[in-house]
Order: sequence, then structure tokens, then C-alpha cells
Amino acid sequence: MEKKIILRDDEMPRQWYNVVPDIPNGLLPPLDPETKEPMGPEKLGAVFPMGLLEQEMSTTRYIDIPEEVLDIYKIWRPVPLVRATNLEKALGTKAKIFFKNEGVSPVGSHKANSAVPQAYYNMKEGVKRLSTETGAGQWGSALSFATSKFGLECKVYMVRVSFEQKPYRKSMMQTFGAQIVASPSEETRTGRKILAEFPDTPGSLGIAISEALEDAAGREDTKYALGSVLNHVCIHQSIIGLETKKQLEIAGEYPDVVIGCCGGGSNFAGIAAPFIPDYLSGKKIRFVGVEPSSCPSLTMGRLAYDFGDVAQTTPLLYMYTLGHDFIPPGIHAGGLRYHGMSPIISALVRENIIEPMKVHQLECFEAGVLFARTEGIIPAPETCHAIRAAIIEATREPDKKQTILFNFSGHGLIDMASYDKFFAGDLHNYDYPEEAIARSMANLPKI
Amino acid sequence: MEKKIILRDDEMPRQWYNVVPDIPNGLLPPLDPETKEPMGPEKLGAVFPMGLLEQEMSTTRYIDIPEEVLDIYKIWRPVPLVRATNLEKALGTKAKIFFKNEGVSPVGSHKANSAVPQAYYNMKEGVKRLSTETGAGQWGSALSFATSKFGLECKVYMVRVSFEQKPYRKSMMQTFGAQIVASPSEETRTGRKILAEFPDTPGSLGIAISEALEDAAGREDTKYALGSVLNHVCIHQSIIGLETKKQLEIAGEYPDVVIGCCGGGSNFAGIAAPFIPDYLSGKKIRFVGVEPSSCPSLTMGRLAYDFGDVAQTTPLLYMYTLGHDFIPPGIHAGGLRYHGMSPIISALVRENIIEPMKVHQLECFEAGVLFARTEGIIPAPETCHAIRAAIIEATREPDKKQTILFNFSGHGLIDMASYDKFFAGDLHNYDYPEEAIARSMANLPKI
Repeated sequence: MEKKIILRDDEMPRQWYNVVPDIPNGLLPPLDPETKEPMGPEKLGAVFPMGLLEQEMSTTRYIDIPEEVLDIYKIWRPVPLVRATNLEKALGTKAKIFFKNEGVSPVGSHKANSAVPQAYYNMKEGVKRLSTETGAGQWGSALSFATSKFGLECKVYMVRVSFEQKPYRKSMMQTFGAQIVASPSEETRTGRKILAEFPDTPGSLGIAISEALEDAAGREDTKYALGSVLNHVCIHQSIIGLETKKQLEIAGEYPDVVIGCCGGGSNFAGIAAPFIPDYLSGKKIRFVGVEPSSCPSLTMGRLAYDFGDVAQTTPLLYMYTLGHDFIPPGIHAGGLRYHGMSPIISALVRENIIEPMKVHQLECFEAGVLFARTEGIIPAPETCHAIRAAIIEATREPDKKQTILFNFSGHGLIDMASYDKFFAGDLHNYDYPEEAIARSMANLPKI
Repeated sequence: MEKKIILRDDEMPRQWYNVVPDIPNGLLPPLDPETKEPMGPEKLGAVFPMGLLEQEMSTTRYIDIPEEVLDIYKIWRPVPLVRATNLEKALGTKAKIFFKNEGVSPVGSHKANSAVPQAYYNMKEGVKRLSTETGAGQWGSALSFATSKFGLECKVYMVRVSFEQKPYRKSMMQTFGAQIVASPSEETRTGRKILAEFPDTPGSLGIAISEALEDAAGREDTKYALGSVLNHVCIHQSIIGLETKKQLEIAGEYPDVVIGCCGGGSNFAGIAAPFIPDYLSGKKIRFVGVEPSSCPSLTMGRLAYDFGDVAQTTPLLYMYTLGHDFIPPGIHAGGLRYHGMSPIISALVRENIIEPMKVHQLECFEAGVLFARTEGIIPAPETCHAIRAAIIEATREPDKKQTILFNFSGHGLIDMASYDKFFAGDLHNYDYPEEAIARSMANLPKI
């Protein structure tokens, strides 16, 4: 059989899939952070364009992908589905392992799948400028790329510690024409307040979100963009799973298990959601969402309404959370360091459709190195989590004939410093103490 | 029409093309550096395996690609041929611009196309370990990847200045399991001698080649590998042009001009050579080889026998050269900083089949930024040279309907520091003074 299954441009799906109407018992609506009442599009419209809000609230299963978005997707999509034959051999497993290679995007990760439509809908409604935050830098690079395609300005608040440690990410965004500032910055009220109190703070995603939101709220020409968690982001990412289904059909295969790493949840939702209708029709298929032991929202968090940021300015989302003031240790998979989880993934865990799994940092890097030396592609630290889980599944019963599918969410070429630290023995495993999680969860908002 | 033309795995060419028998007036043989007599495989066999030497000397047009090499090529090949529609729009040209995206390889460049067969033929003949040099790091990463696939050890002598400035390249090689040392090193006679005399030297490709050769000559289990210049490397790279021809046929297109950047010449030979038989049969097609003004071997050098390294240890090659002791300024396209040029490209320039063109560094980075903001992919500094030439061709007569093809030899995600310097205004143009070139050329060996 073929090593890769490739789709031609005209075989790319022309609609996204929205899993929301298929979630048993549905989703609870976001709440207004002040009134604690369900929040409608009118108030959210201050920071998001209507085109995206309609998707956020949508209960339609299939949503047309605009031609202009398809045109840009075609720069790199459809992306290959690859059989990890060399990894299988190295593991001595009878399982077939397939991975969807989202690393071939111009910015090296799946984040571009949502950045492009987000920039598009904003452009279409006359927005001139987008503000956003970025932690590890994957989302910031993707939005910088996407805004450059639609002639929008882009302002990225980049968590200070990443701003200093990841100069290549900053350079990428600059090359695409974006403006980047270390967060906390002197440019917002929130930033100035925090700097006055903690001049040496390394920053956090929570602070950066607050700054980007304040920026968008304060300017007529600007809206805000978020790279994960929300429904519309998960909808855009469904292109991953929709393509994969077509490719598996060509290969005459069907997965026994679908695996993805979970930070905010969008890449996993992207590969898994399009298989949910089959599951609901009785097909035997498992879904495994993999999170770091150091930030175990699905395995140790609580399903509750919580804020998306430390400053408590976002709408309240009903999700698995460790508490909005939970600060995970500085593990190297920066994209997985988020206290909450997409409401869609949370609901599918609640319904026992998705099985959460937590893994340790060191075994993830070991898995990543094995993958690089067998399949040739160096994975992003986040992606190593999915690979680790695929290895666990493939070796638990090595003689079992099964088909394992995981999402290769991005390559690690711009994050090699993490591998350096791994080889130098400077990385450690973290199991977050239950007391610390309990302490943070005591601060959940009272609904 | 489609944005990308994609081939499926089973459409990948199964033979390489060797242009040597089609070069009018042929090639002159390499000479023994001591006797100045033509050099046969017996002496070269000390550093290269017979499988590669047979290709080096071959006058066969088509050479089978071993199954084991095809299997690894399939990790990323066939690679897309993409129409640069967004760049065309930005330029306001009626030309169609196509690029072959070699940046999707696991190491981000075309270098893997030759690294894989080189590792394979060495493995097949029982070699346990390969030594090589690397400047910018592209070749060293590619060989590290390839040796990891065939269970060989790999030792990379990396020019010290790059070793210090490009930590991510070093990390990549380490992840693939290679050993890397800054050159000059304490590990070879040549290295120790130079360090004793110049303890602060930044190193050079010439020194690193000498160290890698000394390493291979001194150990029974070790052979040497070179990433460009030689015939067998150009043969391996022909996969680029062979795939492209198939893809253009699917698109119903034929190029009026084929463009590539030229350092040692292998990526340009790879895309151009498979079109040479058409040219010789009377097809109207131009070939443009692009080099930096700071290292203008084709446009200002001389066609003569010269050494491949500063230490005068390699065979003498008949090629366009600026003199083996020519030291180009530290431009950021490290892959183009070589005093010589592949004998194959040199002969095709001599026959007026290839037109050489030189371009300045700053206009290349400008072209690269425009490409990133239109087509979304950040090019390697070397690749920016090909893009610049494509832009020149497309805008000279913007209303002319023509088809331009260039090789996108690699992405720039691991070399973003060069873009930083460009944006900071720290880069400059260099026109190498004719006296300096004349001085270096006065030292050509007397044949």
C-alpha cells in the first residue's frame, strides 16, 4: 500500500463540519461575566465579527467554506495522511499507525486552518486590524500569515518569556508584517498596571488575552481573534478530520482509535469531530484526548463555568477547568499550558465519548525523538503528546490488528530549544499536586 | 485551474536522470591533485562507496532509484508544484509563475534528495559511519536525517560561526542522532593546526571539508559525503525536475524559463537538467542560474581546473571558480558561499545553454518578504535568489504571456535570524572587487 494518501486540490472538502448539533445533551451557552446570564451575539459583537459569531452559535451541521478561504487553504491543503510504517517497525507492533501531517502548513502547524477564515470574516465586515495573544507563538504566526493575505493589520501580544526565548517566532510574525509586543506591555491599562506592580514578570497567557481584548475593545477598527477553545475555531479545524476520512476511505481503512493532543482542544476536535456521527450510528471507534500531567484539565479538573483569562474579562464558558488562576509549570509544550478546555471537547468527555489521558513530559520527548529518527519529521512538543499516546495504544497489545490515527499537529523546527533542554537533561516530569488544583478551583465563579 | 499540482506516491519517478551524456562536448574528468592525471574510481574509493562512484562516472541517461530510497522519499515526495497566483497578482504580471516546493521535506530543503541515496549506498557496502561538513546547516541536517534512517553513525564538522549562530540546526542534527563538532576542531590534524595558529578563527567550509575528509581517510568504518557540486548529487536531485515535468504536463503547461539559485549547483541542476533533452531537440526554453553578487563564480569566475577546498586535498574539478582561496563576505545565504560550481552546471554555462545571473542580497530579501506575504511561505535566504530572478523575468515585460518555473529549494523557518538582520537594516549589498577575484584566481593550480 501507499506510504501517503494524497488528495488533489479539487478533492478538498468544501464545507466544514459542526459537531455541536450532534453532541448528546448539547452545550450550555456562554454567560455574561457580569450578569451571569446567557450571552447573545450583540455583546460579543464588540470583539468578534458577525460571520464568526454566527458560527459560534450555529447548530447547522455543514457550513460552506468561502471560496476566498479555499483559495488560501490550497497553498498547503489538502495535507498528506501518512502511514508511519517505520515507527510501526521500530515498535514491533501489528497496529497500523496513520498520522495527518498538519506540519506542512506555511507556519508549520494546524493553527493556519482557523487563522485564515478568522482573517477573512473580519476583512469582509470592514475590520482593518486584529489583535490577539500568543504563548508559544504558533497562533501568533498563523494569524500574522492570515492577516497578510487579506491586507489586515495584526497586533500580537506575546507572553514576555516566549518573546525573549523564541526570537524566530517573533521574526516570522514580523516577516508577515505583524506588530509584536512583549506582554505585559506599556500599551494597555492592564499591562501598565501589572508592570507597575511586577516589573520583572515573565507574563502569562491570561495577561496577554486581557491586553489583546482591551486593545480590540478600545479601537473602532479592531477586533479580537482567539486561536483555540471556541466553537468557531473547532469548526474551522474540522477540515483536518474531513480530509482524513476521505483519505482513509481511499486506503480502505477505518480507525479503531483517534488521538490528538489537547491544549485548548481545537486540533483534537478538528481530527475527531467528523468521526462522531459514525460513532453515534454505532460504529466502534475510540477517541483519546491527550494532555500533559502538568496541566491536567480533563483528567483532574472540574466541569464548570469559568473565565478564559486570569483578569476575568472573558465570557464564562462551561468547560473542564483547573481554575482561571491556575498557573501550570513551565513545560515546553507551551500550547498545552491552558487551564481550561474547549466546551465542545468538554461536553464530549462528559458524555464519555472522548477518553482523556495524561502523559508526562519526558516520555513525550522520547516519543518525539523516536518519531524523528523513524519517520524523519521532528514534531512540536505539543504533538509529541499525541505520538506518545499512539505508541501506548500500539504497544499495549502489540499483536492486536488495529488502526490508530493521530493528528500530527505541527513540526518542531522552530522550537528546537526544547529538544536541547531534553538532551541536556534539564527537563523534568510534573504531577500537579491535588491541593494546588483544589486551591485554584476554590476560586471558580459562583453561578 | 488548480493552485497546486499533486502527484500520488505511485506517480513518483522510479529513475533518476543523468544529464552527462547529453552535455554537448561533454565533461572533462576530475584530476588527481598530486599527479594531475585523470582520477579513476580506485583512488576515490577511499572516501566514497562504489555505488556512488559508479554514478559519478556514469554516462547512462536513466538510473534506477533503489526501492529502499523510494520508500524514504515517500515520506515527503512527490512534492507539490504550486502556481504562485498571489505573487502574480501582486506583481501585476501576465506571466504564470510556478514553483516546486522542496521546502516540505522533513529537513526543510532539497538536500534530503541526495542525503538519502548517499546514506543508502554507503550502508549497502557495509560502511558504518559517514563524515561530512556543513556551512549553513542544511546539508548536515539532511545527512543526519538520512543516516538515522539506515542505522549509520554521522559526524558533522560544522563551520564554527554557524555552529554558534545557528543553534537550532545543531539541535536538529542531534535529534536525528548525529554527532556535531565546531570546525576547526581538536579532533583532526588539520583542525588542531589551524586552531594553534588562529585560535579565534570563525572557520570556513574549506576547513570543514578538509577535516571531514581527514576523518574519513583515517577510519576503516567511515566514508565521506558531499552535499552538492558532484555529478552523483546532481543525478539524485533530478527527481525535482522529473516530477515537475509530469506535473506541468498534467497542468497542460510548459516553461519558457526555468530558474534556480546556484551555490554548488545541485538544486538548479535538479530542476533544470530533465528539461535539457527537450532544449536539445529544439524546444524553446531558457535556463537561468542565479548567484549572489558577492560570490559570482559563474558571472565573474573562470572555467578552469581547481580544488574544492582551501587545503587543496580534493580532486581537481573543471568548473567555474573564483579560486579555491577566495573568501566571500559573510552574506546570509550561507549555501551560496562557495568559490566553485558543479562541473555539470559549468559545462552547460560554457555551452551557452544556462544563462548565469547575479543578484544583490537586499533585493533578494525584499523578494523573499513579498513571497512570504503573498504565497505564505517564508523562503530560505538561498531560495530568495531564485524568487528575485523570477520576479525580474515576470516584470521585465509584464504583459508578456509566459510560464516561469523556479525551484523553491527550501523554507527559511530555521534561518529567521537573517530576516531579523534584514529588517534591522544590518545587511548590505556586496559587489566583489575585480582585483580581489583576480588575486585569488592567480592561485589556480597550473595544469
